[in-house]
Amino acid sequence: MILLSGGLDSATALAVARSEGHRCVTLAVDYGQRHRVELQASELVARQLGAADHRLVRIDLRAFGGSALTADIPVPKDRDERAIGTGVPVTYVPARNLIFLSIATALAETLGARHLFVGVNAIDYSGYPDCRGEFIEAFARCANLGTKLGTDAIEQGRPGFEIHAPLSTLAKADIIRLGTRLGVDYALTTSCYDPRVDAQGHPIACGHCDSCQIRRKGFHDAGIPDPTRYS
Amino acid sequence: MILLSGGLDSATALAVARSEGHRCVTLAVDYGQRHRVELQASELVARQLGAADHRLVRIDLRAFGGSALTADIPVPKDRDERAIGTGVPVTYVPARNLIFLSIATALAETLGARHLFVGVNAIDYSGYPDCRGEFIEAFARCANLGTKLGTDAIEQGRPGFEIHAPLSTLAKADIIRLGTRLGVDYALTTSCYDPRVDAQGHPIACGHCDSCQIRRKGFHDAGIPDPTRYS
Repeated sequence: MILLSGGLDSATALAVARSEGHRCVTLAVDYGQRHRVELQASELVARQLGAADHRLVRIDLRAFGGSALTADIPVPKDRDERAIGTGVPVTYVPARNLIFLSIATALAETLGARHLFVGVNAIDYSGYPDCRGEFIEAFARCANLGTKLGTDAIEQGRPGFEIHAPLSTLAKADIIRLGTRLGVDYALTTSCYDPRVDAQGHPIACGHCDSCQIRRKGFHDAGIPDPTRYS
Repeated sequence: MILLSGGLDSATALAVARSEGHRCVTLAVDYGQRHRVELQASELVARQLGAADHRLVRIDLRAFGGSALTADIPVPKDRDERAIGTGVPVTYVPARNLIFLSIATALAETLGARHLFVGVNAIDYSGYPDCRGEFIEAFARCANLGTKLGTDAIEQGRPGFEIHAPLSTLAKADIIRLGTRLGVDYALTTSCYDPRVDAQGHPIACGHCDSCQIRRKGFHDAGIPDPTRYS
């Protein structure tokens, strides 16, 4: 089970899971995000990287508000590089990864899959608490105690759910190098929090939000041409 | 924040939270359950017990299948009392409480509420792993590590999210006695996994599923008349 947002990180996590020989089912979540083009991107990425199945779940987090990614709050642009990753920005969506991982756990359980892959990364990131290793570890414990698959495994001395975060300690440039080596077509991925779409429905990144800045710098530092279309 | 299913336990949990002086926001989740009358019940219960606000979130877990509560699998009837609570039954919905608690955490965070109440109970229950105290404790840790509210609190030495499960060690009869004392109108609640509705849309319980059997016995043991309409 791979949480696949359509962004650069989760596409790389999928490529890592595939390279380890896993049969992969990918899951995208439509949570009312303003950058909905990522849902389309996740489908393309799943196909390109040979996922066995791609699923979509809808949950409307807009009803809660509180984030620039779901509510009518402006996405910050051209922030100082030193400010990115310091403090929790307004693009933080309350408990998003907690909800996504919970849904992924439910789907994994119905499929009998015990390996979950997520593309979280706490080096070049936006400062979200739910991207850190400590959280991922706590979640794994929780998923095992709160499911039949997990509790059966514990009882029988077998391993239960494992949450893999293969990018957790990599810098963005290293993620891009790794994914490029594993055949990820980054032109299919989209990272922008505030993209436009062209007449064909393809995303055009703003180039100025935190996510665009981190992505741009990653390609630059990796010495790999950035295939992203910017405004 | 109170997770309010419309059943007996969560109604009592709401009454406990109210009796402790909390301003309560209730949350019901429409997950495609076949016993959808409980959504209507949760609204009535929220109003009767003076919730400040009642919210509904939709997430379609039917897409995953795997449970008699969401898929086209028969709900077991007239099971031996000794079998109920032993093993995980087919009415188990994969990772349901994990998903519900995650959504409640997200809503609580946007409202700035740090107290979550759930009606889980591991004495007279259906044998679901996500009703046990160990799981609830692990979830609290996870919620605090995975949110801005929680991580800010930890950093500043303040308490973060607290998950209250005031019924966790009570037998069903004790829950009913407690709720009756606190003014819960149990006629508004519905526990049946497989109810019919009358011409007015009011639920009529089957009387034979695990949940009906546990409820019936609870009222009997408490010596309190059971207001439930059974087929």
